[in-house]
Amino acid sequence: MIRLDAGDAGFARAFTDLVDARREADEDVARDVTAIVARVRTEGDAALRDYTRRFDRFDLDTQGWKLDRADCLAAWEGLSPELRDALELAAERIAAYHAKQKPQDRDEIDAAGIRLGARWRAVDAAGVYVPGGRAAYPSSVLMNALPARAAGVGRLVMVTPTPDGEVNPLVLAAAHLAGVDEIWRVGGAQAIAALAYGTDSIAPVDVITGPGNAWVAEAKRQLYGVVGIDMVAGPSEIVVVADGRNDAGWIAADLLSQAEHDPTSQSILFTDDAAFADKVAEAVERALAALATEKTARASWEANGAIILVPDLVSAMPLVDRLAPEHLELACDNAEGLFDMVRHAGSVFIGRYTPEAVGDYVAGPNHVLPTGRRARFASGLSVLDFMKRTSFLSLDRDGLAAIGPAAVALAHAEGLPAHAESVAIRLREA
Amino acid sequence: MIRLDAGDAGFARAFTDLVDARREADEDVARDVTAIVARVRTEGDAALRDYTRRFDRFDLDTQGWKLDRADCLAAWEGLSPELRDALELAAERIAAYHAKQKPQDRDEIDAAGIRLGARWRAVDAAGVYVPGGRAAYPSSVLMNALPARAAGVGRLVMVTPTPDGEVNPLVLAAAHLAGVDEIWRVGGAQAIAALAYGTDSIAPVDVITGPGNAWVAEAKRQLYGVVGIDMVAGPSEIVVVADGRNDAGWIAADLLSQAEHDPTSQSILFTDDAAFADKVAEAVERALAALATEKTARASWEANGAIILVPDLVSAMPLVDRLAPEHLELACDNAEGLFDMVRHAGSVFIGRYTPEAVGDYVAGPNHVLPTGRRARFASGLSVLDFMKRTSFLSLDRDGLAAIGPAAVALAHAEGLPAHAESVAIRLREA
Repeated sequence: MIRLDAGDAGFARAFTDLVDARREADEDVARDVTAIVARVRTEGDAALRDYTRRFDRFDLDTQGWKLDRADCLAAWEGLSPELRDALELAAERIAAYHAKQKPQDRDEIDAAGIRLGARWRAVDAAGVYVPGGRAAYPSSVLMNALPARAAGVGRLVMVTPTPDGEVNPLVLAAAHLAGVDEIWRVGGAQAIAALAYGTDSIAPVDVITGPGNAWVAEAKRQLYGVVGIDMVAGPSEIVVVADGRNDAGWIAADLLSQAEHDPTSQSILFTDDAAFADKVAEAVERALAALATEKTARASWEANGAIILVPDLVSAMPLVDRLAPEHLELACDNAEGLFDMVRHAGSVFIGRYTPEAVGDYVAGPNHVLPTGRRARFASGLSVLDFMKRTSFLSLDRDGLAAIGPAAVALAHAEGLPAHAESVAIRLREA
Repeated sequence: MIRLDAGDAGFARAFTDLVDARREADEDVARDVTAIVARVRTEGDAALRDYTRRFDRFDLDTQGWKLDRADCLAAWEGLSPELRDALELAAERIAAYHAKQKPQDRDEIDAAGIRLGARWRAVDAAGVYVPGGRAAYPSSVLMNALPARAAGVGRLVMVTPTPDGEVNPLVLAAAHLAGVDEIWRVGGAQAIAALAYGTDSIAPVDVITGPGNAWVAEAKRQLYGVVGIDMVAGPSEIVVVADGRNDAGWIAADLLSQAEHDPTSQSILFTDDAAFADKVAEAVERALAALATEKTARASWEANGAIILVPDLVSAMPLVDRLAPEHLELACDNAEGLFDMVRHAGSVFIGRYTPEAVGDYVAGPNHVLPTGRRARFASGLSVLDFMKRTSFLSLDRDGLAAIGPAAVALAHAEGLPAHAESVAIRLREA
């Protein structure tokens, strides 16, 4: 953890270093992924069979390619009533929030009598990647599948590796709740390639979303354009802006909720109260010692954590914009006023009773958010990621007479005479 | 040009070949682009200077890095009144159409007393790529810059190569009209890298749009995630669905308006009238002979053109959806009814008086559209490409008491105790 003081001489430089620091693992995976993708594209199922045996020690032919609805239902029924209720509350709230994201169609007639508009339609099929093992989160299944459902996607496919045959019942229960249509027991770059190009077994999809390791992320990046993808994701981060009137333990808990994800995660506190900064640092140490995920959280906090003292919280806001954080907590008086100043953040958690983790699970907005300063230009996952817009235009003879001559002039100026002629030939009729 | 008949035995196979045909040039540009991007990232201006001298035979230091507002104004004033009027009509209509794309913010309080919503903001800076030479179209400047302006982008940057110092006055005039803030005389992958990473001279941007050659497209693809990009673009295409009651010359003109773009462009006609199909084929030949762009248009039509006979136009619509064309013209009776059936198309041109070219220039909707079957999942360029959404959440003590326990249960189930504690520590207070 580093501590910075905005009043120090070297602050501007130190803060720029913090903004520019790359936390992404520098694994040279691009070449591996290129080879895997090419082989799945040409060999299809045979490639999936081989990679799954090698990477997951799982034989698709003898142990099964798919998990079916009965598996998901059984997993759901095996959950405790408390967990079923929690997942149901989450699913209801997520579905309700995303249903309101559905865009409006347009169909207008303008002053020149020209009809124009745009119509939104869902993609035909979407694929959701769900990691195997520790990072397989049922909340991620809901956050990826329910927006696709809200969009009206007809066919919703899940791929997930089951290394050594191990299946995560929570993930299956969430798939049951979200109404996933197919679940294939494949993972890694090979699963992404199969979804993009299709194989004899797996029909291709149009959009692929969901978290994954570096190979999965690189495969999505390489196949962007063959299919739609949600985004390029990197390590997660939280920025907390807090005044001295918070319980230091609460703020420490919020910082650690991010740190426990991964050693590359980042937690940053801005405060205007030096004594409070000390208290939070101590509270983090105390909480770490009691945490089951201490090892990961400590590694993240020590390598990437930061506490930044600012003269007042308003002056923190331009710094926050430069970080463009995935998650931003405003735990202070006048949180509303500060929120109005925010230009770049994936999601903002306003007030002392809005810990970021409540948004990870049950609040409703999506927890798939732009990381690594991408909130400058990217948005969280939404219904729009599973839909596309078709613009349209309808002119009658009078409409073409009104605007056609300008098109003819511009087409000739651009050296495109056939463009000009396709308009002019109709104008000559009139 | 190939002719297919949906009634023939081999049709399904032949049509699948048409759908799957790759028209994209198989240039091995990825490695070149990787090297160029890496060098611009580390060497900045020095790399731009060197590449521009090599590729554009242009010395940035002695001949100038930028074109300024006075250059643009002079170009504007040098246009004929007819062209000025045409560009102004285009700009007005494009601006009006895109202004209505601005998304609504959300700010709601739900039944549990929880406040949630989403807020849209423009990106800080956008870069528009404009090709040099023959393919430098003022219409593209308007179609890329005006949506950024409508979004409220603060800084709008154009990059365009000026090989041998040659500047296209139409492009500068369009930049004047669109209010572009900076124009840099650089192009190719090096210009894209400069916009993404910034150099000493050129400040970085958040989103890069605009057409370019294979190097430019590959650079955008590689830098997707460092910046936002519009899309992965390929060769352009049109599908025309026409009955026998059209003038064959009109439909031939529409097919050629696409073919003249590039030899890799594709024009496809579906009709239910075999005699009309013959007439269109003859009309294309006649029109080609008189066309200044004959060489390109003929190469495209011969290599990629198709006329497909269907028993009735309704049965063409599922085939159209498989092609998911960039442009779709419906020149027939009941065009409205057919339009209702369309699931996948970039833009649809309804009725006999709506040639696609009118949409390229002056109608209002964007002419930057998904190509190569990407309309299955992608949309045309819009104001949304220059904006991003920040979701937000605000809970009070009661709201957290209502939904917090479910978050605690799910966090524990996922093995994330610090997530659980950040909620539980607040619930204990109550």
